[in-house]
Amino acid sequence: MQKRHNDIWFTEYQTRHLRLGLSITKVLANIQTPFQHLLVVETDEYGKLMALDGAIQVTEKDEFTYHEMLAHVVLTAHPNPRRVLIVGGGDGGSAREAVKHPSVEEVVLVDIDQEVINASRQFFPALSAGLEDPRVTVLTMDALEYVRGKKGEFDVVIVDSTDPVDFAEGLFREPFYRDVHRALNEEGLIAAQTESPFTDPDILTGSALEMKRVFPIVKVYWGAMPTYPTGMWTYLAGSKVHDPEELRSPLPGRTRYYSGRIHRASFVLPPFLEELLAERNE
Amino acid sequence: MQKRHNDIWFTEYQTRHLRLGLSITKVLANIQTPFQHLLVVETDEYGKLMALDGAIQVTEKDEFTYHEMLAHVVLTAHPNPRRVLIVGGGDGGSAREAVKHPSVEEVVLVDIDQEVINASRQFFPALSAGLEDPRVTVLTMDALEYVRGKKGEFDVVIVDSTDPVDFAEGLFREPFYRDVHRALNEEGLIAAQTESPFTDPDILTGSALEMKRVFPIVKVYWGAMPTYPTGMWTYLAGSKVHDPEELRSPLPGRTRYYSGRIHRASFVLPPFLEELLAERNE
Repeated sequence: MQKRHNDIWFTEYQTRHLRLGLSITKVLANIQTPFQHLLVVETDEYGKLMALDGAIQVTEKDEFTYHEMLAHVVLTAHPNPRRVLIVGGGDGGSAREAVKHPSVEEVVLVDIDQEVINASRQFFPALSAGLEDPRVTVLTMDALEYVRGKKGEFDVVIVDSTDPVDFAEGLFREPFYRDVHRALNEEGLIAAQTESPFTDPDILTGSALEMKRVFPIVKVYWGAMPTYPTGMWTYLAGSKVHDPEELRSPLPGRTRYYSGRIHRASFVLPPFLEELLAERNE
Repeated sequence: MQKRHNDIWFTEYQTRHLRLGLSITKVLANIQTPFQHLLVVETDEYGKLMALDGAIQVTEKDEFTYHEMLAHVVLTAHPNPRRVLIVGGGDGGSAREAVKHPSVEEVVLVDIDQEVINASRQFFPALSAGLEDPRVTVLTMDALEYVRGKKGEFDVVIVDSTDPVDFAEGLFREPFYRDVHRALNEEGLIAAQTESPFTDPDILTGSALEMKRVFPIVKVYWGAMPTYPTGMWTYLAGSKVHDPEELRSPLPGRTRYYSGRIHRASFVLPPFLEELLAERNE
């Protein structure tokens, strides 16, 4: 008889009818924080993985595609991004990307959950390095509250949120975008992640409609992201004056997914996605 | 106590350590053909699904991204594609796309497995329609053998194969590419699917090296494909004289993923993929 071995899997239910399984060798953290359930496991395929309420947030192997696309498009579209606000992003990946822009002088990162920050510091050195950069200030509080009082303080706002459920739901809504608009100065841009057009088309189209009520220029772009549902991930770029498709400031330091050519290509939408956005706009 | 319901899943082991699960309502076919195991199920998330040897080949919901990208890039790059050879593709999806080009007069489709053709006719009308087009001739035989004797007969060859194991392994190799080169006329192009750069980078880089020994121009392009591993899928375009990035003939009739702009954008590779290809090229 063949020798047997452990066969332990982490399973994400991406929808009720679709799930992704990754074999794991170790559970590193498995706790309920005041806001969500936090799991860190070591996987065979993607290195360490952090999930919040069962949804994969980062894996060591593929987080670069998401963080680079979320941060660099609007930072490069801005002519001179100096002050950046990151909403969520407690793992540090978006901050790590933001400080690759030489013009960036200060990054304020506001995450509601101190345990996410702690877990990143303990298990994800390549991500939490973004939290330790001297230009980065980390605040643990509700970003909805933080941004409410701000006026013209930021060049770029990056919304690096979990799925729109519970406390994160407001981050996909017009009142929040209005507060962000006020917090940005006159050349400001916002980037936000808006899920997969195959499994959650309403999140993309709904958020786009809400953002368009506030920002004169709103464009959709997309990229590959293996461990997020369907591997095709969308983003919104909202802007006061600058077309987010155009490159205005120097490219960031070393990147693995993002480039100037990828920047422009990511705004080219397949017809089915253009049609989806047009339908919901009527 | 809550009422329970059936909870039946089809699971694809994309690698030893990574699996995709789709809940199913019905098993429509579950047979061993002379060449492979063939499964057709009805899924909740993606409509009907066909798997060969456990690997998802098509789902009704997302097959369009794969078939459009595999067929249209080289067909549009050719100045006047008239005769097309499809290697594999027994479900009919690639043939359906090929005949969207008004210049195409004849499509020869060679699939080794009659059962795949039968299952498509029985369960996938939107795919098998490609097999019934009067311009399409369907042959059931080994494509490796078929192509061996041909000389200058085709404008475009589309390799719509399963993964490179068993009988399909030769379709990713230099001797086959050499036979295809001979079967193509002087302006000929070949397109081939080459898996995910995250889970199977060696298939992409290996096939690219083998194809480069035969075709003077070989370029990699990519697209989204939700139910294939990692959702990021790569393709090779090999060519005798024409740069496959350029559009030379009219765009095909109605498409949902492919467009002229997507054509060009799909050749823009993220730096990690460019580096992967450069490394293996040294």
